[in-house]
Amino acid sequence: MTDTFLVADIGGTQIRAAVFPTDQSAPRKIVRTPTQGAGCTPIERLLDLMASIWPSEGAVKAITVAAPGPIDPYQGIVYEAPNIPGWTDFPLKDHIQERFKAPVAVGNDANLAALGEWRFGAGRGFHHLIYITVSTGIGGGIITNDQLLLGAHGLAGELGHITVIPDGPLCGCGQRGHLEAIASGPAIARWVEQELADGVPSILSNQHPLTAREVSLAAQKKDPLAIAALGRAGNYLGVAIADMLHIFNPEVIIIGGGVSRSGPHLMEPLKEAVQEHILSRHYLDGLVLTTAALGDEVGLMGALALAHTLTEA
Amino acid sequence: MTDTFLVADIGGTQIRAAVFPTDQSAPRKIVRTPTQGAGCTPIERLLDLMASIWPSEGAVKAITVAAPGPIDPYQGIVYEAPNIPGWTDFPLKDHIQERFKAPVAVGNDANLAALGEWRFGAGRGFHHLIYITVSTGIGGGIITNDQLLLGAHGLAGELGHITVIPDGPLCGCGQRGHLEAIASGPAIARWVEQELADGVPSILSNQHPLTAREVSLAAQKKDPLAIAALGRAGNYLGVAIADMLHIFNPEVIIIGGGVSRSGPHLMEPLKEAVQEHILSRHYLDGLVLTTAALGDEVGLMGALALAHTLTEA
Repeated sequence: MTDTFLVADIGGTQIRAAVFPTDQSAPRKIVRTPTQGAGCTPIERLLDLMASIWPSEGAVKAITVAAPGPIDPYQGIVYEAPNIPGWTDFPLKDHIQERFKAPVAVGNDANLAALGEWRFGAGRGFHHLIYITVSTGIGGGIITNDQLLLGAHGLAGELGHITVIPDGPLCGCGQRGHLEAIASGPAIARWVEQELADGVPSILSNQHPLTAREVSLAAQKKDPLAIAALGRAGNYLGVAIADMLHIFNPEVIIIGGGVSRSGPHLMEPLKEAVQEHILSRHYLDGLVLTTAALGDEVGLMGALALAHTLTEA
Repeated sequence: MTDTFLVADIGGTQIRAAVFPTDQSAPRKIVRTPTQGAGCTPIERLLDLMASIWPSEGAVKAITVAAPGPIDPYQGIVYEAPNIPGWTDFPLKDHIQERFKAPVAVGNDANLAALGEWRFGAGRGFHHLIYITVSTGIGGGIITNDQLLLGAHGLAGELGHITVIPDGPLCGCGQRGHLEAIASGPAIARWVEQELADGVPSILSNQHPLTAREVSLAAQKKDPLAIAALGRAGNYLGVAIADMLHIFNPEVIIIGGGVSRSGPHLMEPLKEAVQEHILSRHYLDGLVLTTAALGDEVGLMGALALAHTLTEA
């Protein structure tokens, strides 16, 4: 009769759900389903997936869910999930609460990833942590004094929307020059395509479609355009990270997401930019700059960390 | 036999000290002395000034001091106070502790100003607050969940060193493009001087020396160059404030310091820039954007707020 947490991670393409015993960080069971498909809405798919693994014995002490987009975690409302049709001002918590009898909490996926890395991953043992995830978008989460920073409506940590080039490239949010518009995977690919269109030679010139993954592979083969593209992204990530050092004076910066696996072609220019923009060496004293430890299950582990935080409070 | 707090505020030109009864926010006594002068070092001047108002009865429950520059408030060390000769890695707390018998705490002046505005000024009743002071330099302080953000070594809140123009003008800290290099008082004056040297007409052309105060007065007289200068500073302050909204999702932004008194020529472009760079209208829901309430005594009131925080803990 072990008590459990039921956790889920909603992405644009896939929903994952898992059951964890309350005293373990290894899941008893993980299941997955596509977020969209014929017949059922995403919320029906989520609820059915969770019901399919509902534990037959013991109490479910908490249900916690990581979801994309700006979220009010206090009310459990997803303001805007760009890749999930119909999820605008969507009362996610209420839907779950209506179906299941257990305390429910939801959070922004990048915020919860920060909480997950802090409790189970690269941030263990630290009190002041910045997590930044670089993939299709750029998101983040901040731990200060062992607490997840949420802010007035729970919208804190949107590190992808720091302005790094005033009047720079258009961001998915409609504004200009945000970090996400310059250093996310699609932004890296777009910059390479622009350079190719301008006639810059590269082994990527016949690559269609082109993504940051191909750019990363081409950089490993010493393609100068690919190296320049990762260097540019790394540089602006470094500028934003220097900002975060001045603002938070953290002990550790953790970089997650697919783009973070591009290796030294991204990380070395990133570190140089931090050095170039920092006010004082004291911000670098003992600073750990590292990549994420939790991999693809970071969303589930983040939701699990939230469940622990809730039930300990 | 009322118990008291003894507080001080050290600036580049003046040291202030005051005695407050522990249950009042009006000082019993305030004294001032120049920071530098013949015969005595700044620390001797501070200690003598404090001794001169040491209460003859009741207990001094705490001695708290606001000081400029990056400070480790945990150890009470001033890393670097550019305008106070000899204050590099300076053990301010130890010096005070050796002279007086009372608990001592020190803090960065802008950090403590944030704490002061939160407890006694424009931030009363809010839980999530950003304070930014714009004068000779640009500093800041952040309250999240009713706590002053300090970070690993207490260096958090250096908002003047957010990069707003990559490869932009040189900052006093030696790096480029920081907010302080573009929107501080001296930076505003420098930009006007550059434009004047380039032949831009203005009523400021015969003004020597030129400071942000004259620029502000000229803007009130509708001088186009002065209006452009304040608009430029306001715009980049707005870019940095939008960053802070994305990062912290605060309830209130408080702008202090001499430059903040420039009125709508600064504040309107600032507000426009926030609108132009913000991810979602939800960040602006109920947001209060205001100027500081505490005026010239903000340093003393910040130190007083620290004394209250310490003795309540």
